[in-house]
Amino acid sequence: MKKMATTFILPCIFLFSISSSGFSSAKITPRFPSSIVRPEQLSVSSQTELYEAKYFTQLLDHFNYQPQSYRTFQQRYLINDKYWGGADKLAPIFVYTGNEGDIEWFAQNTGFMFDTAPHFQALLVFIEHRFYGKSIPFGGDTNVAYSNASTLGYLSSTQALADYATLIIDLKKNLSATNSPVVVFGGSYGGMLAAWFRLKYPHVAIGALASSAPILNFENITSPYTFNNIITQDFRSESENCYKVIKGSWEQIEETAMKNGGLEVLRKSFRICKNYISGGAIENWLSTAYVYTAMTDYPTPSNFLSPMPAYPVKQMCKAIDDPAQGNDTFAKLYGAANVYYNYTGTAACFDLADDSDPHGLGEWTWQACTEMIMPVNANNEESIFPVSTWNYSNRAAFCKFAFDIEPRPNWITTEFGGHDIKRVLKRFGSNIIFFNGLRDPWSGGGVLESISKSIVAIVAKDGAHHVDLRFATSEDPEWLQDVRKREVKIITKWFSEYYHDLAHHFS
Amino acid sequence: MKKMATTFILPCIFLFSISSSGFSSAKITPRFPSSIVRPEQLSVSSQTELYEAKYFTQLLDHFNYQPQSYRTFQQRYLINDKYWGGADKLAPIFVYTGNEGDIEWFAQNTGFMFDTAPHFQALLVFIEHRFYGKSIPFGGDTNVAYSNASTLGYLSSTQALADYATLIIDLKKNLSATNSPVVVFGGSYGGMLAAWFRLKYPHVAIGALASSAPILNFENITSPYTFNNIITQDFRSESENCYKVIKGSWEQIEETAMKNGGLEVLRKSFRICKNYISGGAIENWLSTAYVYTAMTDYPTPSNFLSPMPAYPVKQMCKAIDDPAQGNDTFAKLYGAANVYYNYTGTAACFDLADDSDPHGLGEWTWQACTEMIMPVNANNEESIFPVSTWNYSNRAAFCKFAFDIEPRPNWITTEFGGHDIKRVLKRFGSNIIFFNGLRDPWSGGGVLESISKSIVAIVAKDGAHHVDLRFATSEDPEWLQDVRKREVKIITKWFSEYYHDLAHHFS
Repeated sequence: MKKMATTFILPCIFLFSISSSGFSSAKITPRFPSSIVRPEQLSVSSQTELYEAKYFTQLLDHFNYQPQSYRTFQQRYLINDKYWGGADKLAPIFVYTGNEGDIEWFAQNTGFMFDTAPHFQALLVFIEHRFYGKSIPFGGDTNVAYSNASTLGYLSSTQALADYATLIIDLKKNLSATNSPVVVFGGSYGGMLAAWFRLKYPHVAIGALASSAPILNFENITSPYTFNNIITQDFRSESENCYKVIKGSWEQIEETAMKNGGLEVLRKSFRICKNYISGGAIENWLSTAYVYTAMTDYPTPSNFLSPMPAYPVKQMCKAIDDPAQGNDTFAKLYGAANVYYNYTGTAACFDLADDSDPHGLGEWTWQACTEMIMPVNANNEESIFPVSTWNYSNRAAFCKFAFDIEPRPNWITTEFGGHDIKRVLKRFGSNIIFFNGLRDPWSGGGVLESISKSIVAIVAKDGAHHVDLRFATSEDPEWLQDVRKREVKIITKWFSEYYHDLAHHFS
Repeated sequence: MKKMATTFILPCIFLFSISSSGFSSAKITPRFPSSIVRPEQLSVSSQTELYEAKYFTQLLDHFNYQPQSYRTFQQRYLINDKYWGGADKLAPIFVYTGNEGDIEWFAQNTGFMFDTAPHFQALLVFIEHRFYGKSIPFGGDTNVAYSNASTLGYLSSTQALADYATLIIDLKKNLSATNSPVVVFGGSYGGMLAAWFRLKYPHVAIGALASSAPILNFENITSPYTFNNIITQDFRSESENCYKVIKGSWEQIEETAMKNGGLEVLRKSFRICKNYISGGAIENWLSTAYVYTAMTDYPTPSNFLSPMPAYPVKQMCKAIDDPAQGNDTFAKLYGAANVYYNYTGTAACFDLADDSDPHGLGEWTWQACTEMIMPVNANNEESIFPVSTWNYSNRAAFCKFAFDIEPRPNWITTEFGGHDIKRVLKRFGSNIIFFNGLRDPWSGGGVLESISKSIVAIVAKDGAHHVDLRFATSEDPEWLQDVRKREVKIITKWFSEYYHDLAHHFS
């Protein structure tokens, strides 16, 4: 029924799938083949030392008072008090506002909090988003929780934010740390939640580091072409040939797929497993690789979505520009795809029908069908992708089909704003850092200019998706070190203001 | 079942009723006898010219996505465009964030908006709170909407605020007035909603005038004795004798009620109708008069809760101090009660069992049983009232009995804050006026000190419950004229900043 797994980080694929192949393509939406997912390379010795998992009894519905609103569920959070200065010292609490997946995955990819905790003597807390990971309402039973709109209906951003407020307040009480300042951190959708949390719950968090948070990717605030334009530019900046080969390849794939025996040619060219193949599926599979590689075009080897070399877009273009492949477009593309799908070189074949979801991102489809309506278009001439047109009706039809639900495309801007954000927040709010890396396609929907003295945009020309939040490595370029230094400096200022105000308050 | 009608403006009575007589006293909770309620004296020629009533199709549940969340209801709003400068001129929109009752009643008692609209060329909009007046979900059928927690469950402050945001955004679109600045106004609970609206929806309203909004009356932020202490002080400030007579009367009433034939003595003394009497009911009836009179101790004749002379507390004490009554305490009290209950002199007898609710305030009981948990205590030595002890368990037991529901006493501070408000809002938020009159018992839970340059407290020593919002009259004392002038000046500044920012934004 709702097999069209998709994630926050891939709405364009969500779109491709619908527009190019209709609902039946649900099964072939690209995903992260579990065969090549391995634990993140951590800069600390062992994951088990990173944190302890705990559970909080959370209210199902914060905003209503029906009998069913009072049901509770077990919400997981990860905690690390190794560096904490303690409640007596009013030492701070760093909270990660979990996004659409297993919280352990986000914790392991948010090294910035671990790296800076000793300096700040901070308690670390990572809260899992309801309906993801092990934080499943309805007794933890996903068969029930994910079954239909009457249970999934409690999966919303406002409920998640209220979860975080409730949990943080309770945790601070239990630790007798009411006066310890809280700063929230988040990347991507988690970054949106962090920014919104600071705006909606200033009494709970004194500041937010919102990394790669496309809070302006709603309605018509950001051009729907931006997302794909950035990816196009990423590849084009490596080489014009790389861009042209990819851009020209879609027609060739479609023509080949329609020929007699063409699918077998494609299967062989791309080492696709025997169980399933189609031209559209190959296109999705390749598009996914380009999109995710652009997003995670980090300056050091990483394993956020899959194991990748440093500067993977450059590596992809190197494969495409490789003179050894001559005019064999498919061989070039295969080389590029390998950078994303098979960097470890262990894949025997690529299973286009694999719908495993190792990071537990599946319920994003529900969110994309209710409130997270972020238009992405690819029908402009420059686009490196196959032509696809954003069409709200298509999304609505899919959501009707998948969940019998109608999206509310205006809700996010109604609840959180977005229009005229510079004017609105110029004289309202404070203490938010919006980080964006301009190689990240999501940066187009981010806050790229500082709004006030304390609502600050940090923009890294060479940065990718929340690169600042990753564990520091000895190979980090200077600009990345500088970004993190700036962030630490700003957060330090928040604390000194806080302690100053608190002292004044008590005196 | 849930006959214990009570209102935002009378939680102490809510408390008395429970603590002194148990649940069975539900029927005798004081209310506003409909016999003496007449339309407000308006400074404009006719009420019908004040506004036009319209309806907006509103979503039942903004925060969830169950099939039932998508149900809609007709939300009433009153609109007056007589003074509006129009969308082309970016002329402002004044919105009253309706509280717990019929919106016409609040509109008629918020003359400040009508009085200042010509100057500001403002469009006037008064939005009715869901579940009150004619804004009843479930097809407008109160038998269904009020029947139990599964329908009443949608009555909450967060839903109301989201209603206001949704309606305002839609209205501005329809009027092509997206760039017209909105300022929200509210008194009492409506003032709380106005302040919270500015904090939560800064992208919808550029400022808020929150009059007599006791947003600090939750948890332990404000002493539970404050409410009754202020009333005590109000009467004591008129005369020590007045205070002593009232304070000493409760014992006398209780003793009389227990004597043979004593209830008939009380009936005769207070002209109580034949159908129902008890000592506790008399006490509630008198307490109500003192509380409401203190709240509406306006400097001019008024008819907010009932028709009253100017300075009614003074009038009550005058009756009590009247030497003509000698030592007859009941006669003195009767004279005082007449100021509140029978100023027009038309009441034949007072019906203690009358549970009419002319302003439609009844569903406040639900709100007081879910999130509006405002502790009020009267067990201190000075209190002018009978001893009563705030006890959360009593409230919880009543709510279990009345609605089979458990209050969530920490929710309001979780969602809206309140603790350390000076520290929290010192560097966050802007453009809120908190008006309080210190003779108003609710002022104890209000914001009485300015927090920042643009979050400003206006305090009137001689003011009562949202007196600033009332229609101006030629008898208004100078301090009241000054308060309103200050408010107009501050709002003017908000607009000039807004237009400046907007011009900058577009240039």
